[in-house]
Amino acid sequence: MESHDLRIRRVAIDTWRENVAYLHRDCAVVRAAGFQALSKVMVRANGMTISAVLNVVDDVAIVQTDELGLSEDAFARLNVATGHAARVSPSEPPESLSALHRKIVGERLSRKDLHDIIQDVAQARYSKIELAAFVVATNGYDLERDEVLYLTEAMIDSGRRLDWQRAVRGGPVVDKHCIGGIPGNRTSMLVVPIVAAHGMLCPKTSSRAITSPAGTADTMEVLAEVELPIERLQQIVRDTNACLAWGGTAELSPADDILISVERPLGIDSPGQMVASILSKKIAAGSTHLVLDIPVGPTAKVRSMPAAQRLRKLFEYVASILNLHLEVMITDGSQPIGNGIGPVLEARDVMQVLRNDPFAPADLREKSLRLAGRVIEFDPDVRGGDGWRIARDILESGRALAQMEAIISAQGRRAERPSLGELTHEVVAIGAGSVGAIDNLRLARIARLAGAPQVPGAGVDLLRKVGDPVTAGQALYRVHARYPADLSFARDLAARDSGYLLDPAAATP
Amino acid sequence: MESHDLRIRRVAIDTWRENVAYLHRDCAVVRAAGFQALSKVMVRANGMTISAVLNVVDDVAIVQTDELGLSEDAFARLNVATGHAARVSPSEPPESLSALHRKIVGERLSRKDLHDIIQDVAQARYSKIELAAFVVATNGYDLERDEVLYLTEAMIDSGRRLDWQRAVRGGPVVDKHCIGGIPGNRTSMLVVPIVAAHGMLCPKTSSRAITSPAGTADTMEVLAEVELPIERLQQIVRDTNACLAWGGTAELSPADDILISVERPLGIDSPGQMVASILSKKIAAGSTHLVLDIPVGPTAKVRSMPAAQRLRKLFEYVASILNLHLEVMITDGSQPIGNGIGPVLEARDVMQVLRNDPFAPADLREKSLRLAGRVIEFDPDVRGGDGWRIARDILESGRALAQMEAIISAQGRRAERPSLGELTHEVVAIGAGSVGAIDNLRLARIARLAGAPQVPGAGVDLLRKVGDPVTAGQALYRVHARYPADLSFARDLAARDSGYLLDPAAATP
Repeated sequence: MESHDLRIRRVAIDTWRENVAYLHRDCAVVRAAGFQALSKVMVRANGMTISAVLNVVDDVAIVQTDELGLSEDAFARLNVATGHAARVSPSEPPESLSALHRKIVGERLSRKDLHDIIQDVAQARYSKIELAAFVVATNGYDLERDEVLYLTEAMIDSGRRLDWQRAVRGGPVVDKHCIGGIPGNRTSMLVVPIVAAHGMLCPKTSSRAITSPAGTADTMEVLAEVELPIERLQQIVRDTNACLAWGGTAELSPADDILISVERPLGIDSPGQMVASILSKKIAAGSTHLVLDIPVGPTAKVRSMPAAQRLRKLFEYVASILNLHLEVMITDGSQPIGNGIGPVLEARDVMQVLRNDPFAPADLREKSLRLAGRVIEFDPDVRGGDGWRIARDILESGRALAQMEAIISAQGRRAERPSLGELTHEVVAIGAGSVGAIDNLRLARIARLAGAPQVPGAGVDLLRKVGDPVTAGQALYRVHARYPADLSFARDLAARDSGYLLDPAAATP
Repeated sequence: MESHDLRIRRVAIDTWRENVAYLHRDCAVVRAAGFQALSKVMVRANGMTISAVLNVVDDVAIVQTDELGLSEDAFARLNVATGHAARVSPSEPPESLSALHRKIVGERLSRKDLHDIIQDVAQARYSKIELAAFVVATNGYDLERDEVLYLTEAMIDSGRRLDWQRAVRGGPVVDKHCIGGIPGNRTSMLVVPIVAAHGMLCPKTSSRAITSPAGTADTMEVLAEVELPIERLQQIVRDTNACLAWGGTAELSPADDILISVERPLGIDSPGQMVASILSKKIAAGSTHLVLDIPVGPTAKVRSMPAAQRLRKLFEYVASILNLHLEVMITDGSQPIGNGIGPVLEARDVMQVLRNDPFAPADLREKSLRLAGRVIEFDPDVRGGDGWRIARDILESGRALAQMEAIISAQGRRAERPSLGELTHEVVAIGAGSVGAIDNLRLARIARLAGAPQVPGAGVDLLRKVGDPVTAGQALYRVHARYPADLSFARDLAARDSGYLLDPAAATP
């Protein structure tokens, strides 16, 4: 079947992280081997090899019978010019699949097994269904802690690893991370400038939202460029002590990005995968010291204190073996942090705190100072217990704001900031009382339906938080959208359940 | 996002059982909602709804900005004409995903959970990664036997169910099935004409090969049409007592076909899924009595007698509750059955047995008579123990051959039979001795590389079986291929390991 040379053609179809090869049904390769046999193929050209899923085409406008069409992802990965000769053959399954099969039936995997699997994942040799099989077979209840360690090591080895030691001369390279799940929780955009102003090196890379209404990268993008080539990112950190960049361009733990592309749509976020994902990214980024935020609450990712403690021990076990100094902070995840949910609204909250605005959300300010204080205490010259005060002084003096402005300038200030969605809808209390609870998942979903994060100005602005008194008809939150259909989707969902639980007002005597 | 009407366009891309929707990147829907948010969409048109995976296109030759492209599968499933107005919205995840999540973390599922999941699967609401997650989470070690029962019931309910009671007036509707894994094992093509000649109703539907070198449908297709609309299939059974058709067009247990499309590439074939798959298809086809062949051997699907007995009990448990009379036969799976592996070669073996050819493979003949005898003993008028003799008489008298010819004529005789691959290569013994073992998996793989089943005349013709004496240089088997590259692939694999284990010849005194 390999005897036929085909010409490479770029097919302008974006298949989102899956390599797809398009062959015409009358192509000699398909006729000889058949579609089923070829459902997964190896494409070889110019010494490069990629694996791809085959789609069979009956339209010569897409591919001709002597052409091999490649989706955008496959074309970029193969990195060979249009018109170049290529050969296609049935794919040999990746060798590490035998280890995956052993995991599926409940065996424990060795360091080598996990290394081989993650190498194959990073090289895009796994199809989506194989990735899904791995993610399900290694979900929380099925991984021993040593397997989590091996998985973390393998994910670090799958990509680049940054080294800042010349810049810090043995001093700490710090980072702060939250396991996620709390809308509006943009503490990184405050912690990073504060600790950088203290003189610490903090090369922060963040994710974009996959299932949430905003990731730190989405919110930072309201203010500055976040897609930075790795060399530029390194220069920015040397110049400003820090960055707030999207991690996707940095080639750090690339296997993690591929696994996340399957975990998130499946809604799987198990302890072992979370630990390997977060720690591999931090260690690959060259961090030596990390403060980790684990929010606990009835609608947070972690729902009980015992579960939080178990997760903490797993993080600590893996971090200690990999020589990462880790401080875990278990925080209140019972409601969103700050007022805004969605990139523009969250950026507004962050800038209010940096400007010491009296209307800045107090919970976001206070939590960020606590986290920054813990990071600052990694500084050997800072006494235990002094971190919070130092962080507060840096914030109140305006040095944190100045540092943030420097980071924004270095990354590239957005000439025109996206504006807040002009279509609004207020969700009001149907009775009187005080706010008893706010459902993180519900509010996140409403903000997403309103258009966040694809529409940066879309989202939810919380007007009442837990403990606030409300009267019937008073607004609980305001939905912002850009498109009428988005607003109506979000409004309909909020009408079914606002996400607010009101405790009835105490009877007035 | 739903406010924009798009025109449906059929995109001539065959995505192999996955619904794909193609939207131009400048389409208003994509611009408003973004790609990630839309990675899974609902398509609504003319009162119909399907779910699909989105691919974003940058080429107006494929879709224009006001068009909605649908892959062949999606277009067929939506069943609305080109140019018709359609709307696209972000997909709500299928409701049964919450049950899937509970299964992933180890919970036991209820009858309703499995019913809901299988309904969503049959309606193509699950993406491939969700299907893979289900398949892995329900693999053998994680399903209780009641869950297997519920899964079987749900799969029956997902499609049509045939009823032959008017034809048989309370008599048995029989079938015979093998769990697979043994190359060349085409007993169905002998059992079916024998029992039909005995006067029993046997509506046999079979699969095509997915990972094997031939399914019964592929081999039967050498002789006759096998893709029959269900009404025609029913008429053929009424006319000839039997059929040997491909099951894919019969709408029986369609969820099974969808799950298999993920299980096979993953190499997952767990007991629970096997039981639900086989029994749901048989019961949906209206069978009341089934003989089930479980081959056991070191390279068979089932590798030990205890494993075979466990599997047997699971089949019996589910069959008894669903009122299917089941006889399990545990057979010798230590080597391929018959001589030919691949559609044309296997069809040759079958016809040799039916013609009472003295060179017909004795093992295929004997095994088929044993199975047919057990089926015939379902006849209330047959004494226990008489089945084998009755089957042999039917075969030797030529009545089985006549019945087969009638079935072939009814289904549509192939005007031109595919010929045997003319390129050949003989694999020879490197020493003297006797054949100690033949590796089923190895021989199947060699036959597939030679081109089977896509090239019907490709495959392997075994010249020596277990126990046969061989001298050095004597041929063990002959590879047939149509294309030189296929022959060389197969030859290279055979050179690395022929799949034959020779016991050295006893020292001559």
